[in-house]
Amino acid sequence: MLGNFIYSNPTKLYFGDEAQKHLSDALGGFGKKVLLIYGGGSIKQNGVYDDVIEALTTAGKEIVELPGVMSNPTLDKLDEGRRIARENDVDFILAVGGGSTIDYAKAVSVSAWYDGDAWRNFWVNQNNPAADARIIPVGAVLTMAGTGSEMNGGSVITNRAENMKIGKVFGENVMPKFAVLNPRYTFSLPRRQMIAGIFDTMSHIMEQYFSGDDDCTSDYLAEGLMRSVIASSRAAVKNPEDYEARSNLMWSSTWALNTLLKAGKTQDWMVHMIGHAISACTDATHGMTLSGISVAYYRHIMPGCPARFARFAKVVWDVCPDGRSDEEIASEGLDALGAWIREIGAASEITSLGVTSDMLDKIADATIILPGGYRRLSHDDIVDILRESL
Amino acid sequence: MLGNFIYSNPTKLYFGDEAQKHLSDALGGFGKKVLLIYGGGSIKQNGVYDDVIEALTTAGKEIVELPGVMSNPTLDKLDEGRRIARENDVDFILAVGGGSTIDYAKAVSVSAWYDGDAWRNFWVNQNNPAADARIIPVGAVLTMAGTGSEMNGGSVITNRAENMKIGKVFGENVMPKFAVLNPRYTFSLPRRQMIAGIFDTMSHIMEQYFSGDDDCTSDYLAEGLMRSVIASSRAAVKNPEDYEARSNLMWSSTWALNTLLKAGKTQDWMVHMIGHAISACTDATHGMTLSGISVAYYRHIMPGCPARFARFAKVVWDVCPDGRSDEEIASEGLDALGAWIREIGAASEITSLGVTSDMLDKIADATIILPGGYRRLSHDDIVDILRESL
Repeated sequence: MLGNFIYSNPTKLYFGDEAQKHLSDALGGFGKKVLLIYGGGSIKQNGVYDDVIEALTTAGKEIVELPGVMSNPTLDKLDEGRRIARENDVDFILAVGGGSTIDYAKAVSVSAWYDGDAWRNFWVNQNNPAADARIIPVGAVLTMAGTGSEMNGGSVITNRAENMKIGKVFGENVMPKFAVLNPRYTFSLPRRQMIAGIFDTMSHIMEQYFSGDDDCTSDYLAEGLMRSVIASSRAAVKNPEDYEARSNLMWSSTWALNTLLKAGKTQDWMVHMIGHAISACTDATHGMTLSGISVAYYRHIMPGCPARFARFAKVVWDVCPDGRSDEEIASEGLDALGAWIREIGAASEITSLGVTSDMLDKIADATIILPGGYRRLSHDDIVDILRESL
Repeated sequence: MLGNFIYSNPTKLYFGDEAQKHLSDALGGFGKKVLLIYGGGSIKQNGVYDDVIEALTTAGKEIVELPGVMSNPTLDKLDEGRRIARENDVDFILAVGGGSTIDYAKAVSVSAWYDGDAWRNFWVNQNNPAADARIIPVGAVLTMAGTGSEMNGGSVITNRAENMKIGKVFGENVMPKFAVLNPRYTFSLPRRQMIAGIFDTMSHIMEQYFSGDDDCTSDYLAEGLMRSVIASSRAAVKNPEDYEARSNLMWSSTWALNTLLKAGKTQDWMVHMIGHAISACTDATHGMTLSGISVAYYRHIMPGCPARFARFAKVVWDVCPDGRSDEEIASEGLDALGAWIREIGAASEITSLGVTSDMLDKIADATIILPGGYRRLSHDDIVDILRESL
């Protein structure tokens, strides 16, 4: 059943191997001074930077560059961005990169003209909406599929001093005005990053799917999207330049977390909460923290709704029920999930991410505990899940 | 594979059994004089009219009423609406009803201030975009699920003098600014209308799905949505007041035709073309014209891509492949589609819709022939399909 909700997603998407041709026109509707945000500079090697500069120049923009956004963007880096945006009084922010870069751009967007403590009032306090301060509009050119940041209001920021990594979901006034989605822009991504993005996408879908035991259209859409991600992931790991697979993965990642799948239903999100805590303590790659703990996590919560996990096994993994119990079918489905994690080369444990047994308490302490899809975890549950994932 | 495309869908949706509480606020952003468009007056029996008038009054609007929109809205009725909209210089159009009413509202929206021949230049000439004339913004309160008109730019108009029923897809400036989707508003709909809407939804999905033989995310989403429609339809025909089923059907119908499923792919749409020709010649209910011919149509085009039809059988209808050929599996899938049509009580032939064997040539003449998903039909093919559907 679908509960009451409002769906509104005005982000305009330009998709395909010619998508960048629209960038100059898309920029046309916004002001002259553009803050160009990007990461470590890989876009200067793969031609994306040149395409973007050409579009900005054609559109007659004045460019202020802000490079160096790291994965797991930090509060310190945010303070730098706020200062630069404000000192230059930029009219628009163009983020060129993956989820970290776009998340960071949105964080600068809402906090540049906000005089209060942005970390405390926006991220730590989840119930605080974006303040009345001026919001600088954001656009995005996507170079890594996974986070869905290109079509949602999410922004994850890491506070290294406090060992906290927190995601905040802002409203539609903070969502990108447009995004350029060219699957070829993801071809030069390191293999490990591609795989991390694939699992991040899968995790977004699963964390919305594993909640509720009713009949709800959103869950059927989730199943379709998971089947697509699995099929495309297998082709992409064989040949990362398979355009069909990479275009499907890019589109799937956008729809995995752009507010459609959560429509009218409860959600889980504890894998992300634990994964964020692992990243806060180790700086490990986001998608790999999720793959490293997922099987252990889902085995813990499966008894809360064996029927849903059995459905997952049958519909998503084509497990044959053979007259067995839901628990048995569910267990085979989670085996299939684990086998797929290994097959595509995602992390199937967290030791390789730098987690050691003496860190488990600290990670559990840093985990924000949500109600969960089928069970509210205790601190000890989280330590158990982490230990089983070592 | 996903080809190049632009996705932009700014319609804001208020969904749920309390959705109408947002109507007054949603109207706030638009001008004072509202043209209230509705159908035969059933909204005065079921309380919807009262809810709408209350919201309009709260929002301080001046109301001009335009009732009497028929299913298959005609060009004559459109001329009446253009005149009323223009004479009253309305600022906004609020359509309260199903797809016919909302289609009609969009037709008035684009043509009220257009001085040329709207029928010829917008509907007959499919390549003509909406003219530069002022477009009156539209909002919708949905009372029947099926057409998807609440979140797209489509508008189907019937020219009785020419025996032509033509759908035009306008751009996002013609799409509803918002839509109120309260599943309870559909409870009082006659059973036959509910069933017609269910098959219309299913047909929208199938006509986008049955084209292409590649691996494409859009097709996986289509499969998920079809599974949801089938499950909910079975519950809804048992108990039309099953909120879970009706809410899923309403949401599925919106996403079946709001531009998501067609993203990056070719499409078919010949069932709609033949169905429109049947309605133009008989005034038969739209959804029933589609169910009446679908099995015969798909058996005709199946040889063009047995693999896709076998996939449809397995994923959507849970047909067990049992080592058989794609053609055999595909055929069992189409049997399942036919059995479902009979199970839910949709028309499984077109004789009951008023079609007689002497009309087949005329209907084929009135059919707009598109390239098709797997095969371009000839006039004789259409006559054959119609004859097999008698």
